Amino acid sequence: MLPIIETIPIVQLASGDRLFIQVYKFLGDNPGPKAYIQSNLHGAEIAGNAVIHQLIEFLQGLDASQITGEIWLVPVCNPLGINQRSQHFSSGRYHSYDGKDWNRIFWDYEKEATDISQFAESQVNLSPEEIQDNYREIILKKFHQLQTDINAASGVPFVEQYRYQLQSLSLDANYVIDCHSSTNQGLDYLYCFNSREESAKAFLLDYAILMNEYDGDAFDEAGMKPWLALEKSLAKQGKPIQFDVESWTLELGTGMQMNPQSVAKGVRGIQNYLAKKGMLDIPGFPLPETTSHSVIFILKNRIRKYYATAGGMIQNRLPLGTVLQKGDCLYQLLSFDKTGQFPKIIDVPAVEPGLIFDVCTNYSANQGDYILSIFQGEPEKFGKINFDF
Amino acid sequence: MLPIIETIPIVQLASGDRLFIQVYKFLGDNPGPKAYIQSNLHGAEIAGNAVIHQLIEFLQGLDASQITGEIWLVPVCNPLGINQRSQHFSSGRYHSYDGKDWNRIFWDYEKEATDISQFAESQVNLSPEEIQDNYREIILKKFHQLQTDINAASGVPFVEQYRYQLQSLSLDANYVIDCHSSTNQGLDYLYCFNSREESAKAFLLDYAILMNEYDGDAFDEAGMKPWLALEKSLAKQGKPIQFDVESWTLELGTGMQMNPQSVAKGVRGIQNYLAKKGMLDIPGFPLPETTSHSVIFILKNRIRKYYATAGGMIQNRLPLGTVLQKGDCLYQLLSFDKTGQFPKIIDVPAVEPGLIFDVCTNYSANQGDYILSIFQGEPEKFGKINFDF
Amino acid sequence: MLPIIETIPIVQLASGDRLFIQVYKFLGDNPGPKAYIQSNLHGAEIAGNAVIHQLIEFLQGLDASQITGEIWLVPVCNPLGINQRSQHFSSGRYHSYDGKDWNRIFWDYEKEATDISQFAESQVNLSPEEIQDNYREIILKKFHQLQTDINAASGVPFVEQYRYQLQSLSLDANYVIDCHSSTNQGLDYLYCFNSREESAKAFLLDYAILMNEYDGDAFDEAGMKPWLALEKSLAKQGKPIQFDVESWTLELGTGMQMNPQSVAKGVRGIQNYLAKKGMLDIPGFPLPETTSHSVIFILKNRIRKYYATAGGMIQNRLPLGTVLQKGDCLYQLLSFDKTGQFPKIIDVPAVEPGLIFDVCTNYSANQGDYILSIFQGEPEKFGKINFDF
Amino acid sequence: MLPIIETIPIVQLASGDRLFIQVYKFLGDNPGPKAYIQSNLHGAEIAGNAVIHQLIEFLQGLDASQITGEIWLVPVCNPLGINQRSQHFSSGRYHSYDGKDWNRIFWDYEKEATDISQFAESQVNLSPEEIQDNYREIILKKFHQLQTDINAASGVPFVEQYRYQLQSLSLDANYVIDCHSSTNQGLDYLYCFNSREESAKAFLLDYAILMNEYDGDAFDEAGMKPWLALEKSLAKQGKPIQFDVESWTLELGTGMQMNPQSVAKGVRGIQNYLAKKGMLDIPGFPLPETTSHSVIFILKNRIRKYYATAGGMIQNRLPLGTVLQKGDCLYQLLSFDKTGQFPKIIDVPAVEPGLIFDVCTNYSANQGDYILSIFQGEPEKFGKINFDF
Repeated sequence: MLPIIETIPIVQLASGDRLFIQVYKFLGDNPGPKAYIQSNLHGAEIAGNAVIHQLIEFLQGLDASQITGEIWLVPVCNPLGINQRSQHFSSGRYHSYDGKDWNRIFWDYEKEATDISQFAESQVNLSPEEIQDNYREIILKKFHQLQTDINAASGVPFVEQYRYQLQSLSLDANYVIDCHSSTNQGLDYLYCFNSREESAKAFLLDYAILMNEYDGDAFDEAGMKPWLALEKSLAKQGKPIQFDVESWTLELGTGMQMNPQSVAKGVRGIQNYLAKKGMLDIPGFPLPETTSHSVIFILKNRIRKYYATAGGMIQNRLPLGTVLQKGDCLYQLLSFDKTGQFPKIIDVPAVEPGLIFDVCTNYSANQGDYILSIFQGEPEKFGKINFDF
Repeated sequence: MLPIIETIPIVQLASGDRLFIQVYKFLGDNPGPKAYIQSNLHGAEIAGNAVIHQLIEFLQGLDASQITGEIWLVPVCNPLGINQRSQHFSSGRYHSYDGKDWNRIFWDYEKEATDISQFAESQVNLSPEEIQDNYREIILKKFHQLQTDINAASGVPFVEQYRYQLQSLSLDANYVIDCHSSTNQGLDYLYCFNSREESAKAFLLDYAILMNEYDGDAFDEAGMKPWLALEKSLAKQGKPIQFDVESWTLELGTGMQMNPQSVAKGVRGIQNYLAKKGMLDIPGFPLPETTSHSVIFILKNRIRKYYATAGGMIQNRLPLGTVLQKGDCLYQLLSFDKTGQFPKIIDVPAVEPGLIFDVCTNYSANQGDYILSIFQGEPEKFGKINFDF
Repeated sequence: MLPIIETIPIVQLASGDRLFIQVYKFLGDNPGPKAYIQSNLHGAEIAGNAVIHQLIEFLQGLDASQITGEIWLVPVCNPLGINQRSQHFSSGRYHSYDGKDWNRIFWDYEKEATDISQFAESQVNLSPEEIQDNYREIILKKFHQLQTDINAASGVPFVEQYRYQLQSLSLDANYVIDCHSSTNQGLDYLYCFNSREESAKAFLLDYAILMNEYDGDAFDEAGMKPWLALEKSLAKQGKPIQFDVESWTLELGTGMQMNPQSVAKGVRGIQNYLAKKGMLDIPGFPLPETTSHSVIFILKNRIRKYYATAGGMIQNRLPLGTVLQKGDCLYQLLSFDKTGQFPKIIDVPAVEPGLIFDVCTNYSANQGDYILSIFQGEPEKFGKINFDF
Repeated sequence: MLPIIETIPIVQLASGDRLFIQVYKFLGDNPGPKAYIQSNLHGAEIAGNAVIHQLIEFLQGLDASQITGEIWLVPVCNPLGINQRSQHFSSGRYHSYDGKDWNRIFWDYEKEATDISQFAESQVNLSPEEIQDNYREIILKKFHQLQTDINAASGVPFVEQYRYQLQSLSLDANYVIDCHSSTNQGLDYLYCFNSREESAKAFLLDYAILMNEYDGDAFDEAGMKPWLALEKSLAKQGKPIQFDVESWTLELGTGMQMNPQSVAKGVRGIQNYLAKKGMLDIPGFPLPETTSHSVIFILKNRIRKYYATAGGMIQNRLPLGTVLQKGDCLYQLLSFDKTGQFPKIIDVPAVEPGLIFDVCTNYSANQGDYILSIFQGEPEKFGKINFDF
């Protein structure tokens, strides 16, 4: 089947040139939920582009009768971030104009909602579907009021125009999937909101960070946070509901790369997730292993990041994927001197046990530069996994 | 008199070199409050360096008997930000490593305080001085617990080390003055916290932005916010106190410049403020005009910023300091085209009356780039001022 | 009259977006020479955009019978450089990918010519027009061979694709005008090649830098150098000819600005130059003052640039346009210390007499940063000029 | 034995802070030649720092009697380049202030020499040692005249101060070794000047680029070029001499890394080279394989670099070290669209046979971005090598 392809201008540059985002919309024969999938919000995080490319090719091969609902795909969704270069590297994590992290700019309804608990109270006698529709309507109405400022002669900063474009496409979706990867070098995992652990399995990844803390500025958070707030409010009023709304960030390996294994996992995970949600009718899916698939969940505040305690060069670092005991030597810092002394080697021990899931690409470190990240936990927790690098 | 000069290493770089901050401490003969004055936290905002240089020279010319309390001065307080260059320009507004705005990194006790109202309750029978001492002790104790993370093998990001150094010097001060200027081109004004309007006069500046909103991440906010919270809590409990604690950000003109008029205003204002606080015993100070000096206060949420609504080049912009009627043409955007059309001129009208207090240095604008800022208000409010540019 | 408008893609970005240049071609009724005018090759140098915009509007108001030959105009000619930002500043002087200065990338036929003197010898019996045609043909043939590499699977660096696009438009022009301005803050002047001094007058600017040295990498040089080489070679062979080929760089004031006075001078100068060349038939032009206009020529190697001899902040700098005696204090460096000493003031004297024609925008200087530029010469040489800033 | 450690300030920053280089000088008991070894001239190229660190430790373990002549080592030789960051990456290939490539700034005596052939003529009756001494003296005298400009009130750009510092240390050395690596990801190889092929063997690397073209701006070139010119001139006059002067650039693997294998090769190669030159008396060295070691020399103009012919994402790239036939698919470009079309895959074939010796780190490419480099040549030339990645 062929998608509808929509091209949307997002910015006119000083030179008069314009940059665009392009949406591929696959509309199924059968009415149903909406899935929204984007990639490359951070300039260096390109693996998701290959995932979306393969999904577009895959969906083109289907018949419209095999799709329930609609699937929207937006690869290379952030032209300003993607095309930014500093020397040969993709420096598009934050906007070079104002330093804003491209994934901390989004609009969170909950921050502007006057009284969610009052709304919840007003809905207790309605069906989940009715409540979902009513709430969605309120969110969208409030959201589209942003246009007033955007269209005023006084304008808004680019990040506010840009977020409006992306959220216009995604805010009414049931399932949002934002494909990221490490800025540096990382394992494949996903971010999962509290209460959606069961759904997370369908992505067939080994690890998930459980979002026990979030502020609503990231793309996944902005979409999900108001719904979790409403669910909580309804539960308090004795009406526990889980809405058909989910939001995911997939982390697919290493930055500035499209690692084939990470890409393959991304494609298979999203196909399986959509099949599990009933949106794709394809042979063999959802895969039989879905229900038995075991995900290791790590609480977000159980991540430990290491930063250089002195300036220097990193050597003998334990590889990505290593399971650690407390006290293991994580890496050495070869620290040079400018006061007439010799260079020295500093051994850096692990402050607790865990698994190395992300490491820096750059082995040259100013004091305070990022070195690596650890899922905290006893080795047994991570022991069953085999890494083949 | 001679100050004590202390040199503090703040970072070891990858090359092994170290960068420092240097504190000039003038200790008066008479015990009294502590004033802390710094400059150049943002790399482009250099006017305060000349102010502090002149204050150092001025204080050297005094006798220790003329100073009550102690005055600490830290010019060029952010080496990483100051020395950063992009082409010929000072690009040090945010850290080139992680995009963090150098003035949105600070530690705010209130965010970690478990229960300020409980503390307030426990102090209602004490004198203001006792409460101030007790609260200060609690804040400092909590603050110095940050050392545990800083000294751990896992380290902390540079901005967290750096803020610890600056706040170690300033957190026990009664009066904190942070000298900024516009990143672009601006008038001279200051930021003033609610309830400190009377003190603001002593700086003898024409405008003040009244901080009716703040989140505690800026340097002035981080120092002041916990005290305002305690004052509010005590007031609720029927014990209104204004502690001898104040925090100020001075905005001294245009970025990448040390405009002599702005510098002179900064020096005179700080001398007068310190004299008013009884810290300087110098002839003629506080200046007689201090009490009658009229400051125009503008609420922080009554600032309107303009951003380019299209890409292009700015022409015929009204000058800095212009008082506006609604609908006045603020500037034109000469917008070029890349689709076979002619360039066009877009007139941009003022959406409300006010005073232009800040304008961009760069007349080339991508859509969403910053153009200028306005204090909203009727022309009469600003009518008496004369600008001589 | 209406121009032909041509839109040319110059690059596809990683995101799939494309950037363009757009040419406005005014074709006169009468055959004649070709003039090529561009602006904003360096990102910060925007004044020429307003010049070209006004020229487009002016030419639209003419009748095709008033134009002899054709006039091509390319405003905002370097999208990658123009849209580049570092913080609020236009950092587009060099390509952020490889550090190449956008105006040191051009193709110079002379560097590839096997034997110009042999060619000259072969042409001594032909008319200047014939020689000009023959040489042009050779240059263009060689130039278009660059396509082989550009079209190969191995590709070429972006700067080589880009220069090919710009030079494709301009290499057959008789008169090339490249509108620049200072990266920093500067007077209005132009660059003039040896032997074209008489033509320079028509621009009605007060100063010209006489290019007694050039290497062919700049846009004006790349166009002109092969012709000067041929002229020299023919002269050696007893056939002095001045071809109807000229190439100019106009420097129109301050960077990141479109100063109205600089823009007006640019517009008037180009109109007058084209009228003088017989391309424009407009009342009153060439202006009567053209022949008597006196230009102060300064040899390129008689420019003195000053760089900071220590790190610090600049104060009390003499203003742009000042005529100097040797030993005059040009500026002071307020140099801070990090070894326990006081800040100090360094006076920087002029090492010879002259005129300040360019000054840095940024008063914060690392050791070795640029401060200002001087046309060397006795004060009498510059004495007659009045500056009104 | 202990080295003499000298710390040399190279720049005072705007903040007043200073950066340094530090030289470790091992002076042998026996008079002899001088070797100069530096690393990290380009900010991302850090492998040489580990090499020099290990050499310092190794030399400390020797007795002064084991060293003939003197060995100077300068790790982390370019603080401004090394500490530069753009996001998490080391962007120090060119100076962020003026775009100058840190390894294209050096002073080449030949460019200023008035007449080397005249000098050669004047020396034909002297011994090689005498000529070498006389020439060295002339070079150094001319070089130190640069101080006049450096010390003048007008100053010089930072790169000119900096090159003066580095060349002051190295210009009188017999053997200069500059440790680089790829900005991206590369094999281990070295640059070798014409006529020094025999000496190159001692580094025990598999590949060498033979410098049949050079302009004297790189560090190795600036040291070597005047000597090659003199040798050529003397040869013309019938006095073929090879002076005891050599200059090398080692390329040690991948940027932003200190790959242990590359480091080990660097250490062993330099030890062996110094032993071969008679400067180190250590058991087993020079290694027996030195004379039989076979180096594959590739002419500098037989390197082919590939650049993206469209914007897009790179996939299925052949790995570093692959030996190619003409027409082999080197990589695919996944090119996205913003005009309503589908993404497409572009296959990029090899335009000639050869060996992939360098590949980009970043798989996201604007049109014209660098992809990979090839040593051109028939597969048989490279066939014997085994790569184990």
